Parts: sequence; structure tokens; C-alpha cells
Amino acid sequence: MKRVDKAVVLLSGGMDSATTLAIASERHSIIAVHFNYHQRTEERELWCFNRLCRHYGVSKKIIIDMDFLSKIGGSSLFKGARPVPVAKFKKGEIPSTYVPFRNGIMLSIVSAIADRNSARYIYIGVVEEDSSGYPDCKEGFIKKFEAAVRDGTKNNNISIIAPLVRMTKSEIVATGLRLGVPYQYTWSCYESNEVPCMKCESCILRMNGFSGAGVRDPILPDLLKSNRG
Amino acid sequence: MKRVDKAVVLLSGGMDSATTLAIASERHSIIAVHFNYHQRTEERELWCFNRLCRHYGVSKKIIIDMDFLSKIGGSSLFKGARPVPVAKFKKGEIPSTYVPFRNGIMLSIVSAIADRNSARYIYIGVVEEDSSGYPDCKEGFIKKFEAAVRDGTKNNNISIIAPLVRMTKSEIVATGLRLGVPYQYTWSCYESNEVPCMKCESCILRMNGFSGAGVRDPILPDLLKSNRG
Repeated sequence: MKRVDKAVVLLSGGMDSATTLAIASERHSIIAVHFNYHQRTEERELWCFNRLCRHYGVSKKIIIDMDFLSKIGGSSLFKGARPVPVAKFKKGEIPSTYVPFRNGIMLSIVSAIADRNSARYIYIGVVEEDSSGYPDCKEGFIKKFEAAVRDGTKNNNISIIAPLVRMTKSEIVATGLRLGVPYQYTWSCYESNEVPCMKCESCILRMNGFSGAGVRDPILPDLLKSNRG
Repeated sequence: MKRVDKAVVLLSGGMDSATTLAIASERHSIIAVHFNYHQRTEERELWCFNRLCRHYGVSKKIIIDMDFLSKIGGSSLFKGARPVPVAKFKKGEIPSTYVPFRNGIMLSIVSAIADRNSARYIYIGVVEEDSSGYPDCKEGFIKKFEAAVRDGTKNNNISIIAPLVRMTKSEIVATGLRLGVPYQYTWSCYESNEVPCMKCESCILRMNGFSGAGVRDPILPDLLKSNRG
């Protein structure tokens, strides 16, 4: 398939952004952008980012250091912050893992990159339905942000695409498997141990996704194999 | 006057942001935020920022390093970039001093700061009429960005105030003088020489402002005095 137009993809290295990259790669030449904000899991995420970029042959990689985010503070995801809580999913409650306006900041930076590189599309893997309830992961927010970006950029023709926003986690896994996403190169856990903690919200959401799609998550240890070995 | 609610003020150290700080200080307790993005004039701007903060007794100062902006590139304002052009003001043309989506990025970061500190107001000194025509300095953009910020933050009650957006440069100077703004602690020139170059857009706009208001700019050398000495 001929790839038309450039797209900037936010690629954290989690399962959602990897699936989003797979979708964008079908149509566009890719500029992949990764954000380092001194989160506990940065090293592992960066490894996934580089593997995914190689897998999809992206044309340009940009790594943005957001030192300042931990200076603003306010989230248990930062290194040295209070512990990451176990999953709760209380309706209408925003958990302590919330990083204030993180998607707003990341979207504004990739909008600058898109404007500078004459890319017409921005892809972001936000999920509204099956999420932790962060306010900047909702479709309404994305639409309003897009309207602001169109007004505030030189090329004023940028579209922000959030292909997963209405999907459940198992729909995301099913889509990704159909597109051949190498999920072994993704990391979702909020902690940075050898294996996922399976207690934090992000682990629970991922586990539901894979079990709902009826497949085994390739990053989980193969218990059968290790029992045998 | 009793100061109610907190406001976050973007304070570059130029005449517009200094005037904006003066206006915000009349009503609010202030968190002042300065951005360093490796522009040619950063040292001088930072000096102005600190002086202005002391003058207005701001309650909190935050300096944000935006290293990444020069990595995105695209503006003659960065150190080591092509030279700053002399003023042209061609209708409908965006000059090379444009930093892609700079106000969008800065507004998203101060929105995070406002959300984190439960501040209800953000003040930004953008000017639409008497400006260089940057797309992210227009009132329509600010309104749309505010709508996105309300959707995307935890406290969802943030207002973005742009008190100068419809003023001419001479109205800004007149307003500032009425409020006693110490313009000797401001810098507008895009170059970083001992005295303003008086050739770049920013110098021309400032000069028009002071001459329109019928007052002498305190940062210009006193030619009469130096001739005498």
C-alpha cells in the first residue's frame, strides 16, 4: 500500500500506543515521538519504543525530555513518589497516578513537531471507555484540543486521530493481533520489576484485554514452561 | 485590596508579560512561570523575570526548561540559528521568528501547574492586533485552548485571561504606566546586545508603543546624558 502524508505518532511503548502505531503505519510515513518524564518505567519503555520503531521502519524518531513534569509533581508515577496504588476503578474518581494534563502537554509538543515537519496527522492511543478515568483521555477533550491546534499552527490543517478511543481493551488486543503487533515489545505495568506486578490498574486493564481476546500475553512468564524447566 | 484566588502568570520578562503581571497582581496571589528555551536573550529575560517577581511579591516562582523546543527547531530566535530578520510586517505572512505552537506548549504546561496548585486563572500577555501575526497569539486560539483545558484537567474550572489581546502597543504602555509597571526591568529585543537593536520586529513594536503613549522607554540609552558625560 502506498503511504501518503506524514503522521506523528505518540509512542510510549505500551500496548495502546503500539497498536496505534500499527494502524497509522498502514497509511502514513511515521515520525515517532517518545516522552521521558522520569517515570519509574522509563528505561523499559524506551527499549520498547526503539524495538517498535525498528519493527515498523519509522522514518524519524524523536525523544523528548520532560524533566519539568516531575517538577510540577502530583503523580505517584514519578520515581521516588509515594507507592503506586493497587487498582480500584472507583467511578468518577481520578486516581493518584494521574499526571496533571499530561496528554495536553504531549499533544501540544507533537503539534509543534507536526507543524514544523508539515505532517497532517497526529495519532494518539488514548482509550476512553476502558480506562482509569483520566480527564485528558476522553474523546471530547481530543476534539477540543484539535480545534485549538488548527487555530494555533502555521499549517492549520492538523487532524488528531485517536483510533482506540471507543474500543475496549480486548477490542484493542484483537485489532493489534490482526495487524501483527509485536506485543512482546510493549510494557504497561506502572512498576519496573522483572515481570508485571499484576496489581496496578494498568496491569489489570491489560490482563482483561488479553483474556477478553482469548490470547496469552507474551510478556507474562510462561508458568508451564518454567515448571517443566 | 484583598487578593482572591490564585493565578498562574506566564512571565517572559517582556513588556507585555510585565503589564499582564501588573494586572493579575491587582486581584490574585501569583504563581509566576518563566520558560527557558535556549533563545538568544534568555539570560537577560531571566534577570527581568526575577526583578519583576521581587517587585510584585509573587508567592511562587517556577522556571521551566524547554530544551526540547530548540530540538524541534524552526525559528530564528534560537541561539546559533540563522540571523534574526529586520522587521517587515507583511500582511498574512508568518515571520521566521515563529516558534511552532510555542504558546500552545507553554499554555499546556501552565495548565498542568494550575491544575496541580488549584489555581483558577491563567494570565497570558498575548497581543493580537499589534503583533507579528503568529497564529497562536490570537483571541480565537486562546478561547479554543481554554475549552480544551477545561475538559482535560481534574479541576475543570480554569479560565485563561489574555488582558492585552485587543490592545495596541501604546494602550499597553499607557495601562502599564497607570499601574506603575517598572519597564526598566523588561526586555523585548530578539538580540542580546547591550542596548536594543531597534531593527527587529519586537523592537519596532515596542518603540511604537512608547512613542504612541508619548513617553520615553526607560531601557533606551539616554543620548542627551551620554553626550554630556
